[in-house]
Amino acid sequence: MGQEQDKRFITPRSKDPSQWYTDVILQAELADYSPVRGCQVYRPYGFAIWENIKRLLNDRIIATGHENCYFPLFIPKSLLDKEAAHVEGFAPEVAWVTHGGGKLLDEPLAIRPTSEVIIGVMWAKWLQSYRDLPYLHNQWANVVRWEKATRPFLRTLEFLWQEGHTAHRTEQEARDETARMLEQYRQLACDDLAMHVLAGIKSDSEKFAGAVETWGIEALMPDGKALQSGTSHYLGQNFAKAYDIKFLDEDNTERFVWTTSWGVSHRIMGGMLMIHGDDKGLILPPLAAPIHVVIVPIVKDEDRGTVLEKCQAVASALRRVEYAGVKLGVKVDDREGLRPGFKFAYWELRGVPLRIEIGPRDIAEGVCVVADRLSGAKRKLNVDYATSALDSESVRLSLEELQAALYARSQAEVMGRIYEVGSLDEFKQVIAEGRGFALAPWDGTVQTEMMVKELTSATTRCLLPTPPGDNVKCLFSGAPAKHMAYFAASY
Amino acid sequence: MGQEQDKRFITPRSKDPSQWYTDVILQAELADYSPVRGCQVYRPYGFAIWENIKRLLNDRIIATGHENCYFPLFIPKSLLDKEAAHVEGFAPEVAWVTHGGGKLLDEPLAIRPTSEVIIGVMWAKWLQSYRDLPYLHNQWANVVRWEKATRPFLRTLEFLWQEGHTAHRTEQEARDETARMLEQYRQLACDDLAMHVLAGIKSDSEKFAGAVETWGIEALMPDGKALQSGTSHYLGQNFAKAYDIKFLDEDNTERFVWTTSWGVSHRIMGGMLMIHGDDKGLILPPLAAPIHVVIVPIVKDEDRGTVLEKCQAVASALRRVEYAGVKLGVKVDDREGLRPGFKFAYWELRGVPLRIEIGPRDIAEGVCVVADRLSGAKRKLNVDYATSALDSESVRLSLEELQAALYARSQAEVMGRIYEVGSLDEFKQVIAEGRGFALAPWDGTVQTEMMVKELTSATTRCLLPTPPGDNVKCLFSGAPAKHMAYFAASY
Repeated sequence: MGQEQDKRFITPRSKDPSQWYTDVILQAELADYSPVRGCQVYRPYGFAIWENIKRLLNDRIIATGHENCYFPLFIPKSLLDKEAAHVEGFAPEVAWVTHGGGKLLDEPLAIRPTSEVIIGVMWAKWLQSYRDLPYLHNQWANVVRWEKATRPFLRTLEFLWQEGHTAHRTEQEARDETARMLEQYRQLACDDLAMHVLAGIKSDSEKFAGAVETWGIEALMPDGKALQSGTSHYLGQNFAKAYDIKFLDEDNTERFVWTTSWGVSHRIMGGMLMIHGDDKGLILPPLAAPIHVVIVPIVKDEDRGTVLEKCQAVASALRRVEYAGVKLGVKVDDREGLRPGFKFAYWELRGVPLRIEIGPRDIAEGVCVVADRLSGAKRKLNVDYATSALDSESVRLSLEELQAALYARSQAEVMGRIYEVGSLDEFKQVIAEGRGFALAPWDGTVQTEMMVKELTSATTRCLLPTPPGDNVKCLFSGAPAKHMAYFAASY
Repeated sequence: MGQEQDKRFITPRSKDPSQWYTDVILQAELADYSPVRGCQVYRPYGFAIWENIKRLLNDRIIATGHENCYFPLFIPKSLLDKEAAHVEGFAPEVAWVTHGGGKLLDEPLAIRPTSEVIIGVMWAKWLQSYRDLPYLHNQWANVVRWEKATRPFLRTLEFLWQEGHTAHRTEQEARDETARMLEQYRQLACDDLAMHVLAGIKSDSEKFAGAVETWGIEALMPDGKALQSGTSHYLGQNFAKAYDIKFLDEDNTERFVWTTSWGVSHRIMGGMLMIHGDDKGLILPPLAAPIHVVIVPIVKDEDRGTVLEKCQAVASALRRVEYAGVKLGVKVDDREGLRPGFKFAYWELRGVPLRIEIGPRDIAEGVCVVADRLSGAKRKLNVDYATSALDSESVRLSLEELQAALYARSQAEVMGRIYEVGSLDEFKQVIAEGRGFALAPWDGTVQTEMMVKELTSATTRCLLPTPPGDNVKCLFSGAPAKHMAYFAASY
């Protein structure tokens, strides 16, 4: 990894979290801009974080009975055109391949913006009997949507994601699946990535093109904007009817299946990075961190050999420790010619949860210093340098505590930034000042949503499950309120 | 998984291995054709095999010091055009995106056929000092090449692969890296996938577009055709000069880097599937098998409950067993209404290495029957059905033996099908009869290669490291021989 960051300036997070985000992403070498507009490069450290998120989510997807598979990148135009709402929603964002093998193609091929269509076509081919159901498929893939404004991880033309697609015999099964995967996403955000999220159904105008219902998880960024971080769609029989996905039921009647789809992209990684950090840089939740512990030798040149050897021995001991099902990632920063203070800043920028410092005096005392990235607190840990034995349980515990503390902080932050507003003025103020979510009674109409958006830039993010009382009026139209809705500006 | 295969017919492998391959791929539900010409769908069982191969290879790539990252799918035309040999080789196979977001693009975007270009451009941006080197990058990605004739896994328009890209300070380091990764590929094929391969340098006409040297591993298919299963390219400074990838060396001089690239695609999976099989279907090397053991209850309806319970208990015990660093994949085939014989055939088709049969009599005797997919041999294994304890070491040993036996068979097959030919007639016969590799002295000219190809359809696959003796003449031209070359028809 390079050493550029000390040449540049990182905007303080406290001053401008949005610019801080871009600065940190680039200078911590997580990602970079490519020569193709809106397409990012994942550099090794950034990709390692994504691979961890991928593993955490994949484990959840497999544990809930799904199977990974892979469908083609291309969708012929004539197939994409079959589901009316779907094509209307996605056509403006599609990238088209028109030439291949030196020739103009007979039919343009869409680069998948999502794969309901191509998967639906294959299901129609495969599916025969109710015994074949449910289909519980998932794929990890790149997709392309021609976005106008882009930002690393949060919105890119090409992005990496998983998309689950399932087909069921009954409506209830499909509805249950939609809820099950929304809950997995909520747990991924809260339990794995330490990001508190609101989970709920989206309004009709915010739903997926072709869905009957879209459910989502919404995170809150430091600037008060919401980030849609995962969605789970109940598709009813819309795609089944458009793509003729039928099965012979037990009673010998041919029926259409009920389908769902659900996706989480690298956007959730962007949200995680933006939520956990400070003026020094990132703070990675230990479960998502590729490097859990960095060991920095505190050493003058004459002691270098011995101290490095002890650092490596401690690293080896820690690499045998298991944390949350994986071995600890441990890095010894043995670069020459750099001050310890420089190295501290380097790894703080990169959000490594724990730093261990080892110098000649520590070795003589039989200790090392453990510094916590979140609190900055330092404490001494006994090390038997003859055998490299140390209290690894205490290291693991520190990681668990840091993970829990990050989540608690995030949860408190989100809960503290939900404003149940009583007037339009108050609503406007919450949004204009970037304070967070405004919870308000809404009449359920698109017209009102549009009006609110034009007035304030806020949209409905998700709805409370319980309806408002009988006499509650919409904050905006004065008509009877149909839902209590979370409103926010959003990424 | 469906039950189609008993309705269809699988061409015997002994009769037509090529048709057998297609039949088995489709009927074992590994892959299917999609509505897009030449693009396959990976069904769950096929994708699980690919995920295992991916893991085995990824472990090797990481263990040799490389880092995973991810670069964009698109390459602007103007960038692709910069390395003359590269663009000449790939341009005819490129798929072009010309429209995005409802508009004609200012510049067409190539869908990556390989990523030297886009990675080179980023390296040029990042690289400053010799201290930053080497760059040891790898990505797992989909790429697109507009092929005419396609077959599942062996040649598809879109395919999944890994591509390693490395940049070095010196020529020697880059040459060493090229050799190191070729050796990793050889080990992947031989040690992990039980496919014996020949490894060596390719002739100039067979090398990668833009490379100085291409090294490859060549497998032998049952029909006597070679399958190029992985390549490692020494790129010299060709890409460095085309994309201006320079660094400041220790002596303060600006120098171009030396680069390599190397790739293995899902093609190696196709080769593995084609090599190991019989008239009943696939035989998966245990290291690549998603399911190591299938348990089939031998049961009449009245005993179903007890027997199934015992099967599940044995499965649970086996799932705790580690084999080659992963837990055993164990499936209980508890489908109702199907005869055991049907289930045997179903899992034999899918190449599951071991089958365990458990019936009421076995339970009474305290045994189960273990059948080996390769030899078909059955033996009894003691089981304590009260505690579900069984000799798991013996199961693991059976898997190791099967893996070793498959490789030994493959090695013997390849070695027995290399013909050191003494005459052109003999050469023609070896190729025409699909006997395998013809090893022959060659004058090293493209003209001779072209002539041989027109005459016999065979091409040079790789060269022996040691040159022929001084007086040896080219088998085809009579000119002095420069290399001993393996010739074969190829996929």
